[in-house]
Amino acid sequence: MPQVRPHTLSGFMELLPPDQMQMERIMETLRQSYALYGFTPLDTPVIESAEVLLAKGGGETEKQIYRFAKGESDLALRFDLTVPLAKYVALHYNELSFPFRRFQIGKVYRGERAQRGRFREFYQADIDVIGDGKLSIMNEAEIPAVIYRSFSALGLRRFRIRVNNRKVLNGFFAILGLGDRAGDVMRTIDKLEKIGPDKVREILCDDLGVGGDQAEELLAFIACPGSSADKLGFLRRYQGRNETFDRGVEELATVVEYLGAFGVPEENFEVDLTIARGLDYYTGTVYETVLLDHPEIGSVCSGGRYDNLAEYYTDRTLPGVGISIGVTRLFYVLQEQKMLSQALLTAPAEAVVIPMGEDCRAFAVETATALRQANIRTAVYFEDRKFKQKIGYADKAGIPFALIVGSDEAAAGLVSVKDMASGAQEKLTPARAAERINAALEERRAAKPIA
Amino acid sequence: MPQVRPHTLSGFMELLPPDQMQMERIMETLRQSYALYGFTPLDTPVIESAEVLLAKGGGETEKQIYRFAKGESDLALRFDLTVPLAKYVALHYNELSFPFRRFQIGKVYRGERAQRGRFREFYQADIDVIGDGKLSIMNEAEIPAVIYRSFSALGLRRFRIRVNNRKVLNGFFAILGLGDRAGDVMRTIDKLEKIGPDKVREILCDDLGVGGDQAEELLAFIACPGSSADKLGFLRRYQGRNETFDRGVEELATVVEYLGAFGVPEENFEVDLTIARGLDYYTGTVYETVLLDHPEIGSVCSGGRYDNLAEYYTDRTLPGVGISIGVTRLFYVLQEQKMLSQALLTAPAEAVVIPMGEDCRAFAVETATALRQANIRTAVYFEDRKFKQKIGYADKAGIPFALIVGSDEAAAGLVSVKDMASGAQEKLTPARAAERINAALEERRAAKPIA
Repeated sequence: MPQVRPHTLSGFMELLPPDQMQMERIMETLRQSYALYGFTPLDTPVIESAEVLLAKGGGETEKQIYRFAKGESDLALRFDLTVPLAKYVALHYNELSFPFRRFQIGKVYRGERAQRGRFREFYQADIDVIGDGKLSIMNEAEIPAVIYRSFSALGLRRFRIRVNNRKVLNGFFAILGLGDRAGDVMRTIDKLEKIGPDKVREILCDDLGVGGDQAEELLAFIACPGSSADKLGFLRRYQGRNETFDRGVEELATVVEYLGAFGVPEENFEVDLTIARGLDYYTGTVYETVLLDHPEIGSVCSGGRYDNLAEYYTDRTLPGVGISIGVTRLFYVLQEQKMLSQALLTAPAEAVVIPMGEDCRAFAVETATALRQANIRTAVYFEDRKFKQKIGYADKAGIPFALIVGSDEAAAGLVSVKDMASGAQEKLTPARAAERINAALEERRAAKPIA
Repeated sequence: MPQVRPHTLSGFMELLPPDQMQMERIMETLRQSYALYGFTPLDTPVIESAEVLLAKGGGETEKQIYRFAKGESDLALRFDLTVPLAKYVALHYNELSFPFRRFQIGKVYRGERAQRGRFREFYQADIDVIGDGKLSIMNEAEIPAVIYRSFSALGLRRFRIRVNNRKVLNGFFAILGLGDRAGDVMRTIDKLEKIGPDKVREILCDDLGVGGDQAEELLAFIACPGSSADKLGFLRRYQGRNETFDRGVEELATVVEYLGAFGVPEENFEVDLTIARGLDYYTGTVYETVLLDHPEIGSVCSGGRYDNLAEYYTDRTLPGVGISIGVTRLFYVLQEQKMLSQALLTAPAEAVVIPMGEDCRAFAVETATALRQANIRTAVYFEDRKFKQKIGYADKAGIPFALIVGSDEAAAGLVSVKDMASGAQEKLTPARAAERINAALEERRAAKPIA
């Protein structure tokens, strides 16, 4: 038989079963957290018409996109979940209730240069709230609660949601007389963490023609220290000089004001005036989320408020706010940093029933059926191998309980339940065995994916 | 702003939120059922090297596949989950425990001519058990239990798993002296339900040169009536004339023998000698599953035993058995036939909190936080609209409970809980409201997706 070398494309994550179990748990946790906040699940095609996906066009997107013809059709793979959402809302506008709150967890595609930790196929887990014409600031205030709940449910504790407001930055740029260069200044600020203040000052002064004093004031402004309350106090000193700035400060104050009611602890939140976000289309609150023990990773959950989701598809004004978790990259990092919980059971089954011979098969099957009725994930090892190999299967697969069924046991209606970790073994009826296993696994089943 | 007409490609399913909720529930149910039988979840890339996907090559596959270049790479979208599984097992052989039991639910792509109920992007939900060198017949006997459990969990009752064995058919063809035409005869038999016995007889005699008596005997054989036990009795009369046939009868008898132990009721199962399955690579037990009230739909869950999963990628012999549910098509049919349960809640949230003014926002948010703590999927309607529009949102979105927070209520620590179905309204504390809502929703939360 002529053979092809089996391989997986570089830049495409393909996990071994225990890792995949962790990944599934992470996605299930996100689904549940998002749903708890009244977001409805959505699923859109991976393939869309290239014309639709590239309606905005330009930039990196066009270079990285997977685009191809099929028959007469010019097709492309989605490169994010926001453009398909814009299409969806424009297309199904009449059938949706607004504010429209949806979550979507799905694969997206970017043909980037392959490099460590960069993926060409990766999962994004997005939520967005879309308003019809207008959208209350309170939706922006609610987002940190969703992030907090999601990350806590994953098992993370030492993380911080950093929040800023684009109107504050844009308003301040205008106060400094830099309104005409707001976009460029914003993108420069966004690089602060990566390149440091000296390099930012250099770009501001040399490339953007910002005066030395202005650059100093700007850098001092965004570096303003203290608590969120301190920073709001600091911002209020500039009030009355620019309308956009004033509105931004009020929005930021509202977001901070309701944190407690939304159940977000103070230590997981901070106003950070250096947060700018690269994307042009944010117009209000912007979010980043950092793992305090791994700042080098950068933000693992980002997003913000935008004023017009679907301008390329409809004349309707559809403002919104959303965040996105790059799940594949997050998983990669958690794995690298050995942050995935070992408490979580990653075996294919919680119990394996092992019949010792043909005459005990029926009782082995009945035992497995009883365990499954009791909601225990159960496999039966039917293969005709030596005992060592049979028990070796449970061992290699990491299955915590092996239920050995010999002829004598089967005749007596009993199974030998072996705890694979301790080696302890006892003879029980299938019903008792199910109780014992369920009790023993209670803790591991409740374990969170991240340690 | 230049605009693009928003549209979704034909042949690509994109559901409205209530339908998507049903779809999610179906997939979640399948995930849980599959996991209960000790299958581990797997996820492989949607894009693979074309060389890998087309290793077998030929036929319809090559015509329908989405294939394209990116840089130097010749890529393609997977058209099923079996070929990626073969690649996966060959590639990761050393890291897997055998028998390797995996399930995978994912999108696959086939550029078929668009027609009603046919999709170019669709979900398959597969399970397979892969042996290393050999695989016990008991794994084939277990498959009906997984199908039974999965369909029951979805809410289906009137379905039947029909089982046959390729060795029985091939052995019988040999007994009739048709061994040299076994493949063609098999494919003709497979069309029986679609084209009827007269047309099958015609093809057998005219196209395949089968004698009139042989064709009669063959048609009488596969049409053999009675219970599964009757049919096994009938088959045993032919025993001793062909080794393959005898082995097939024993395998079929084994599958029937353990049904009870596996918990499959007799009425959900039958031996059906007309089941052939089109694909060449099945070598033992084959399965189809029909909805008794909708036989016109054909099989909604099919599969079988094969002897060599990954022959194009490795010299190792990897026999297996698997089944596949075409979830997108199944969903389409269930929707068409109005079989989706109306009991299941498909709203984005179970409760919506409605603050009547700015001064009651904080208490509204605290109420929502309390409800979420009690695991109630909760949205807050923050928009500044008239009361009629606020309550209209709950109504249009189908949210069963609206919690109205006015200034007086907020001051007293109470909310007006409105049951949207009955219109009944009562003032409660947030904690009492959570209890009331959880109690009221218990039944709907446990509802199965199919009525």
